[in-house]
Amino acid sequence: MKEKLDELKKRLGVVADLQRAGALLGWDQQTYMPPRGAAARAEQTATLNRLAHEHFIADAVGALLEDLQAYAAQLDYDSDEASLIRVTKRDYDKAKRVPPALVEELARVTTLAYEEWVNARAESNFKLFQPHLEKIVDLEIQLANCLGYRERIYDALLDQYEPAMTSAQVEAIFKPLREELVALARAIARKPEAVSDAVLRREYDEQKQWDFGVAVIKRLGFDFERGRQDKSPHPFTTGLALDDVRITTRVDKNFLPTMLFGTIHETGHALYDMGYRADLERTPLEGGASLGVHESQSRLWENIVGRSRGFWTYWFPRLREVFPAQLADQEVESFYRAINRVQPSFIRVEADEVTYPLHIMLRFEIENELIEGKLQVADVPAAWNAKMQEYLGIVPPNDALGCLQDIHWSNGYFGYFATYALGSMFAAQLWEQAVGEVSDLPVQIARGEFGDLLAWLRAKVHTHGRKFTLDELARRATGAPLRAQPFVAYLKRKYGEIYGV
Amino acid sequence: MKEKLDELKKRLGVVADLQRAGALLGWDQQTYMPPRGAAARAEQTATLNRLAHEHFIADAVGALLEDLQAYAAQLDYDSDEASLIRVTKRDYDKAKRVPPALVEELARVTTLAYEEWVNARAESNFKLFQPHLEKIVDLEIQLANCLGYRERIYDALLDQYEPAMTSAQVEAIFKPLREELVALARAIARKPEAVSDAVLRREYDEQKQWDFGVAVIKRLGFDFERGRQDKSPHPFTTGLALDDVRITTRVDKNFLPTMLFGTIHETGHALYDMGYRADLERTPLEGGASLGVHESQSRLWENIVGRSRGFWTYWFPRLREVFPAQLADQEVESFYRAINRVQPSFIRVEADEVTYPLHIMLRFEIENELIEGKLQVADVPAAWNAKMQEYLGIVPPNDALGCLQDIHWSNGYFGYFATYALGSMFAAQLWEQAVGEVSDLPVQIARGEFGDLLAWLRAKVHTHGRKFTLDELARRATGAPLRAQPFVAYLKRKYGEIYGV
Repeated sequence: MKEKLDELKKRLGVVADLQRAGALLGWDQQTYMPPRGAAARAEQTATLNRLAHEHFIADAVGALLEDLQAYAAQLDYDSDEASLIRVTKRDYDKAKRVPPALVEELARVTTLAYEEWVNARAESNFKLFQPHLEKIVDLEIQLANCLGYRERIYDALLDQYEPAMTSAQVEAIFKPLREELVALARAIARKPEAVSDAVLRREYDEQKQWDFGVAVIKRLGFDFERGRQDKSPHPFTTGLALDDVRITTRVDKNFLPTMLFGTIHETGHALYDMGYRADLERTPLEGGASLGVHESQSRLWENIVGRSRGFWTYWFPRLREVFPAQLADQEVESFYRAINRVQPSFIRVEADEVTYPLHIMLRFEIENELIEGKLQVADVPAAWNAKMQEYLGIVPPNDALGCLQDIHWSNGYFGYFATYALGSMFAAQLWEQAVGEVSDLPVQIARGEFGDLLAWLRAKVHTHGRKFTLDELARRATGAPLRAQPFVAYLKRKYGEIYGV
Repeated sequence: MKEKLDELKKRLGVVADLQRAGALLGWDQQTYMPPRGAAARAEQTATLNRLAHEHFIADAVGALLEDLQAYAAQLDYDSDEASLIRVTKRDYDKAKRVPPALVEELARVTTLAYEEWVNARAESNFKLFQPHLEKIVDLEIQLANCLGYRERIYDALLDQYEPAMTSAQVEAIFKPLREELVALARAIARKPEAVSDAVLRREYDEQKQWDFGVAVIKRLGFDFERGRQDKSPHPFTTGLALDDVRITTRVDKNFLPTMLFGTIHETGHALYDMGYRADLERTPLEGGASLGVHESQSRLWENIVGRSRGFWTYWFPRLREVFPAQLADQEVESFYRAINRVQPSFIRVEADEVTYPLHIMLRFEIENELIEGKLQVADVPAAWNAKMQEYLGIVPPNDALGCLQDIHWSNGYFGYFATYALGSMFAAQLWEQAVGEVSDLPVQIARGEFGDLLAWLRAKVHTHGRKFTLDELARRATGAPLRAQPFVAYLKRKYGEIYGV
């Protein structure tokens, strides 16, 4: 069995190399590729995706997995070997259901769609993007039918990003959460004057912002020997190897949080991608467990840590050294309140913690309707704006601030958005547990010390790579499956205090 | 036959995509990859190289080429189809002789060797690099034996970069050339005070240098919509697609020519890579004919155009606007003489036109001796220094300025160096022809107009991609095979005038 396992790993290593090279093609496309390089890049990306898929679904891989099933059954469920065989089999069965031609077509269509989405957003012209999105929805429906599902067609897409999660489960969690959030937001809305974020909209030199962000994330544990940061229209993290993890950010001269919290957010992802055990590298167990778990890491660092009073007890005096004029009239407390202002807004990635999940629910519902054929692509802008009115009480003045704001659909990432909200919930659950287990955690953070928190996350989450599902990880790290309660309690406590509600 | 040709092209397209993705891995490694990313990058590069090789030498490709031989024989030799079949067959027969394991091993060894070469050069410590170079020489000998040769083992390596050229041919050209160059250099050496380049060693702001370089190459025809420029330790050009061609440069605050002529040099390569007919893309006919022909383009733009009096008639006033203090005491003529100063020096890439080919001959001879087993790697520094003394009359004070200066050996590029000198000769031959065919060419250049020259090169050289060998191209563009005479005449005329010899 040792020989078969080695042969399996060798084959999976080739797949990993192809995927990583493909990830570099994607990173480059969004950072440094010259404008006219897109057409050739689409060919390259399609070829690498197709080859990775073909190598992965090779009959020899299937035979090795079959031969190893009995062996795996004797091993501890949590062991590296059992997990490798289990997770690879799960991925293999899924991948086997998708024809190589569909994978290649999706890669080609989405590469071109991405380019057009950039233009459409710049011009706020949904019509430019519409034909691309129509093709993508059509391909996603084909994909879902190939993948298969038990209850609802959308489950097949969701399962790609959050294994074992279903639409019904997500809806069961979202429904009561929405009621809590709308109630909290409504109570806060009665006190619009309680918090001002005007300070964040002063002019902040872009290079100084960048440098401050770098100083912050170095202290959080981002290792520039093993990664780098660049600029791109939509921030993202890509793990090209355990020792080559890249984040991107964007900088808005007139809105400090864009860079600041974007950078911390991506660093949360990057710390996860830098943290799995080296033994898992170049296997399907490298990287993060799921998008929900990945998002728990970015949200934990961005919101629970990065928007806490303790964090700014340490960092505010340093930020004021960089921007003395802009912050002359501020103290830690006023700055802390400014970065935690709650207000309905158009852009998801700049939304506050309370309204953010409402942006997600809107997208989750629209995707469901598109995939179930209840909504036409041409009607997305209208549907979007109607839901914005219903959940947030505001309507975007144009589609750039509405349904064109996110990169995801241009990439074919249907089923992805829900994981952001699941991540917020898991982040709060992990934090509650960490505070109980790591002595003085809030005190450490107020001193600018993040090592113990990172070590705890490494041991409880990062080290396992993709071995476990979200619920499996939650049970091992916190003794319970995913729960919304810690998140709701966290929001009520924090914003109850800030707003006196 | 049409169907077989289409099938062949489809297969070759996959090979091209893998090679281009591999080229991006290489570009990234030398520009943006974080320091600790090298080990994983070596795996990725090895896997992509191996897959590209395997796809190319697939039996199906061989069978298609066999089936197409009779068809190709009926076609015009110069046609796209005949050329595709002929050049692909030549490449295929060569590639078929090299086992995939050797290709992979070379990729892995050279990726790590490159990293260590960077360190060795930084510390000027040949011992660090020696074990890597020993492995590489051993692999190159294996490679040459696999490739096969008629006369001398080194021919096999040379043929990789300059198809159909042999060591004996190169030596026959180099021997009389060396005598001419040493005589010319000796005559010039009697007048060391005739030209000063002190002006080039003043302090020039790096960003301003960069910006001026960009302005120059835009005017030469470098299209930033279809390419980009970055920094790297050793300048290079890489064609990731017809519409994605990238150059790199380096900037020395205290030596203007490093950036200036390095940038123009790489632009010469890039204009070639941007100039083949789109029909040839994603086939073995994309890119340049050979390294010698490639170098003819970079040398033509760098030296014959970029170091001409006419070029600076246009550009000097503009450069003086950027650096008024540094150039206050200069006129076009004094600047023209400064950039054409002849003096023996240590660094090949910064050598003048007269002594440059002597650097090449030294390397060509050392490579021959290493591959023929007449020289041990441990003895390279001593052999290098002895030849420097013999040809140039100087000895480098350390190996960073000696045998560690070039990237080539760390990449396994044995057989490459000779092509630089062949390129210089072909550049002069092409220039002589262009001046005869394009009216007012020198006048245009003195006006900062480069479009007619570029158009002539496009039509005579670039458009053909890899269809022809150096001699085939020379016959088509100039009516004669490669000749050294135009190069010697050019040097004697130019430097005879500058130095009055």
